[in-house]
Amino acid sequence: MYCRLWVHCLALYIISFSACILLYFEYKNIASMRLSHIIQSPTNYSHFAVLVRAIPQENGESISDAVQKFFMNYHASSYLSHQVVYRTGKVQRLMSNAEWVYKNLVRLKSTAISKTCVPITYRCGLCGGTSDSFQLYRNEFEPDEKKPCPNNSDSRTKAKECLAAFVFFKTRYAAVIGTQLLQSSNPMLWVTDLAPEPHDVYWSNLWIPYRQLWLRQITVLLASIVFMFLFLIPVTFVQGLTQLDKLQQMFPFLKAILAKTVMTQLVTGYLPSVILQLFFYMVPPTMMLFSAMEGWISRSGRKKSACFKVISFTIWNIFFVNVLSGSVISQLDAITTPKSIPILLAKAVPRQATFFITYVLTSGWVSLASEVLQLFALVYNAVSKYVFRVKDDPNSVPSFPYHTEVPKLLLFGLLGFTCSILAPLILPFLLFYFFFGYVVYRNQIINVYCSKYETQGQIWPIVHNTTVFSLILTQIIALGVFGTKKSPVTMSFTVPLLICTLLFNEYCRQRFSPIFSNFSAQDLIEKDRDDEKHGRMEEIHQMLHSIYSQFPADTINRDVHDANSRQTQQI
Amino acid sequence: MYCRLWVHCLALYIISFSACILLYFEYKNIASMRLSHIIQSPTNYSHFAVLVRAIPQENGESISDAVQKFFMNYHASSYLSHQVVYRTGKVQRLMSNAEWVYKNLVRLKSTAISKTCVPITYRCGLCGGTSDSFQLYRNEFEPDEKKPCPNNSDSRTKAKECLAAFVFFKTRYAAVIGTQLLQSSNPMLWVTDLAPEPHDVYWSNLWIPYRQLWLRQITVLLASIVFMFLFLIPVTFVQGLTQLDKLQQMFPFLKAILAKTVMTQLVTGYLPSVILQLFFYMVPPTMMLFSAMEGWISRSGRKKSACFKVISFTIWNIFFVNVLSGSVISQLDAITTPKSIPILLAKAVPRQATFFITYVLTSGWVSLASEVLQLFALVYNAVSKYVFRVKDDPNSVPSFPYHTEVPKLLLFGLLGFTCSILAPLILPFLLFYFFFGYVVYRNQIINVYCSKYETQGQIWPIVHNTTVFSLILTQIIALGVFGTKKSPVTMSFTVPLLICTLLFNEYCRQRFSPIFSNFSAQDLIEKDRDDEKHGRMEEIHQMLHSIYSQFPADTINRDVHDANSRQTQQI
Repeated sequence: MYCRLWVHCLALYIISFSACILLYFEYKNIASMRLSHIIQSPTNYSHFAVLVRAIPQENGESISDAVQKFFMNYHASSYLSHQVVYRTGKVQRLMSNAEWVYKNLVRLKSTAISKTCVPITYRCGLCGGTSDSFQLYRNEFEPDEKKPCPNNSDSRTKAKECLAAFVFFKTRYAAVIGTQLLQSSNPMLWVTDLAPEPHDVYWSNLWIPYRQLWLRQITVLLASIVFMFLFLIPVTFVQGLTQLDKLQQMFPFLKAILAKTVMTQLVTGYLPSVILQLFFYMVPPTMMLFSAMEGWISRSGRKKSACFKVISFTIWNIFFVNVLSGSVISQLDAITTPKSIPILLAKAVPRQATFFITYVLTSGWVSLASEVLQLFALVYNAVSKYVFRVKDDPNSVPSFPYHTEVPKLLLFGLLGFTCSILAPLILPFLLFYFFFGYVVYRNQIINVYCSKYETQGQIWPIVHNTTVFSLILTQIIALGVFGTKKSPVTMSFTVPLLICTLLFNEYCRQRFSPIFSNFSAQDLIEKDRDDEKHGRMEEIHQMLHSIYSQFPADTINRDVHDANSRQTQQI
Repeated sequence: MYCRLWVHCLALYIISFSACILLYFEYKNIASMRLSHIIQSPTNYSHFAVLVRAIPQENGESISDAVQKFFMNYHASSYLSHQVVYRTGKVQRLMSNAEWVYKNLVRLKSTAISKTCVPITYRCGLCGGTSDSFQLYRNEFEPDEKKPCPNNSDSRTKAKECLAAFVFFKTRYAAVIGTQLLQSSNPMLWVTDLAPEPHDVYWSNLWIPYRQLWLRQITVLLASIVFMFLFLIPVTFVQGLTQLDKLQQMFPFLKAILAKTVMTQLVTGYLPSVILQLFFYMVPPTMMLFSAMEGWISRSGRKKSACFKVISFTIWNIFFVNVLSGSVISQLDAITTPKSIPILLAKAVPRQATFFITYVLTSGWVSLASEVLQLFALVYNAVSKYVFRVKDDPNSVPSFPYHTEVPKLLLFGLLGFTCSILAPLILPFLLFYFFFGYVVYRNQIINVYCSKYETQGQIWPIVHNTTVFSLILTQIIALGVFGTKKSPVTMSFTVPLLICTLLFNEYCRQRFSPIFSNFSAQDLIEKDRDDEKHGRMEEIHQMLHSIYSQFPADTINRDVHDANSRQTQQI
């Protein structure tokens, strides 16, 4: 008996150490990839721009004047220009959207007729090599008139100035200085952040007064927690479906339908999981909505925040709710007595191992298959193409849904870690899942999704932290197991491992996480010098203004430019 | 019955709102005092200096060369000079200390003989006005030779270079930029912090390799927690003293002494509290030691950290241990079931109210009296003056012991808040304490202690946060009271109050706390311009090097300079 526990303890050590080593090298690798992307990428305009919010207005002065006065006064040597953010009304937004769509369609038609179809070859998902068997025809815009749209200034005068502006600096280093320092002695005024990439800007959130943001964040946090617990209501309702007798009593008309055994099996066997799955499909959009309400200035920030929320939700509602299965109240009881959690988990996890294996099979493998098939997109596309006769729109290619896919992967990681000691039968299934996941996601990222903006590895810290959380949870469960088996020696061997894992996480936080939230002076100065040496600075300064334009006429110009720059990148 | 609870609820609302309003205006007031100190104070040399740690050495290059190369490369326009920190051996430190003491004594003797006694008048503790009834004679150094000491370079060559250096910049703004930005793409290299004031530098901590710091911090955190719980051992031992019978059985020789009733009363009545008080005197030095081990670069940082530790210790060991009175295990049980805490506190606080009133009388009033008398300093001074014939040393005047006095005040604040609803009889005693406390501390700060360095209000955020904690604890206790009296309506009125207090705290954190951790670009640039306009910059640049010198010969020069600048301030 004791011998078996020692084997468990040894396995725990091996798993923890190999996980930590892999995590360390992966973090290091991704950090260096992020750095080399910053250094080697061609001109990234967002590094020159700073978003200033909470601009104070003095006696009727316009926002534009206030910004110019402040930055000319305090950052005269590095300040280049600025661009105020406008708040567009709903009607105007609709109009400008319509205008944009119309122009796009006209241009698409003309380009479709002409010969600008650029053949792009597919690349293999596994090795990244090119193959000639499939070809995708992508429509590209023709670089056309660069003159500003005549009704551009019109739309600006109609719109209302916001207390926010993009301020452009002459160098990357100056821009970063502008964001890192407290500008005014009142920290709620002249709040600066590094601007997101032009495509990444979440315009409507720039209109939110800065003073509201902290309240919004707290409200959304509370709302997410309430949502997490309210979700148990449909779960219990669905579990009620398995008790058909009561349902028939309540709705007599069902009796005729449910007379057949096939129907009964369908309703009791498949319907609950289908309904539950449908409810789960609701979660990522809801979390995206929550994150949008939080007031993120960039789409990537919103997606990152939603990703974190969905991870918390998934781990709570798939792992903990199933493990601690029972009513909401009994789960809350379990949480409020932290001492009993390890033993509770140690008892419950092996009991639920079969369910988790089934979950990997049904939800994991199926989700990979549906990811490859893109069933929804396929049907939507077919209907819009053959029924509504809509032409292909290159802008409709979605970006990778980090907020739905990353949580899935991390959940399976968590299941793997927590079951590895007590129910290792799940591991082959997971290995299979992760292998195919690698192939599928690699293919999807290379060939299917387009990246509209660059997050520069911002998602990785979330993945790292969640994996460390899984690891610690595994160790806590192991502690519970050794506790129930009354083996104090193995318990006392697990505690140092737990401490070491926490220390490892702290070390990684110190060593790597500043890289993901800041840019280093050294890199930026080197890059500035490089650009100056090659005479690229003038060109960048000229582009900045048009690239951060809020209005559709400018948007099209910007798109054109981006398409060009992307082409040059590919070359 | 219900009516009485409503009165309690109303009182809670009034107390909470008035506390929040007072806290807000006090935070605002102290923040503006801090800002005006930064703007209006004469040249603060520390604003020009940056402490750089974790300097990487490449192929045998000296630290000094590495620093110069790095800053000349990346901050050429604003870099002025630098000064490497040396690690002095123990023997050398002793020698230099002896040298310094000898020089001081010689100089003191000569100045005592000459006529440089400057009369400084006492100021009234209450109104700050001057009075002629007392006069303090303070010995001042004569400003003497400014030439560098000949053995200065000698001592430097003997000492070992550390991986740390003070880097001086041409302007305050450039120095702050140097501290706020990540310098290298490896966050564990070229770590920059704004330098502490010259007198505030904690030299021996600058020698600690930066890589150790995070481990030291975690170790100290754990050690402090263990110390907090280990302190219960003397407490229980002392409580054993009240059971004299057992003690007599163990040590038969005590029987003769304890035969008299006076002795018995003394041992059971006074001895336990005296021993406990003596143990408590041990706490602040221990916490100072812990904070020194954490690796703070400044004395003020060390004191601030010790202050926070002593507060946590005091609140735990005086308030919670007395309230939850019982063994360590039962207290831990209470903590691990958070749901039961409000009810537990609600039952226990009124029971302990008499003890707390006695505590205010014995510990609070007595500590004020002993603070005024300075009994220990008086005896020490008398002995050293009349027995050992040591001359007065102006350097022996201590600075204000924030880490012992602030926790005391905050503990009484906590007692006042938590008892205010259930046992308001404590309030007149506390009012008396705080009134006399104001007079006593004002007097002590003006007339007794000397301020060796300026923390610029850094302690206030701790005071604010602890007071908000007290307020929230009061509300939780009130929740417990309404819970035990089964009054759900008053309970549901207390919850919004709790949420509002938390929101208030969050608002203050957003609005004020950045002011206490950063300097704003606007203020620094204005101050730089002002200095440049008045032609003070040159003078400051020349002084910087000598002022941050680590070696005794320089130290004396520095002291001389400081004495001068203090005199000019007073004028």
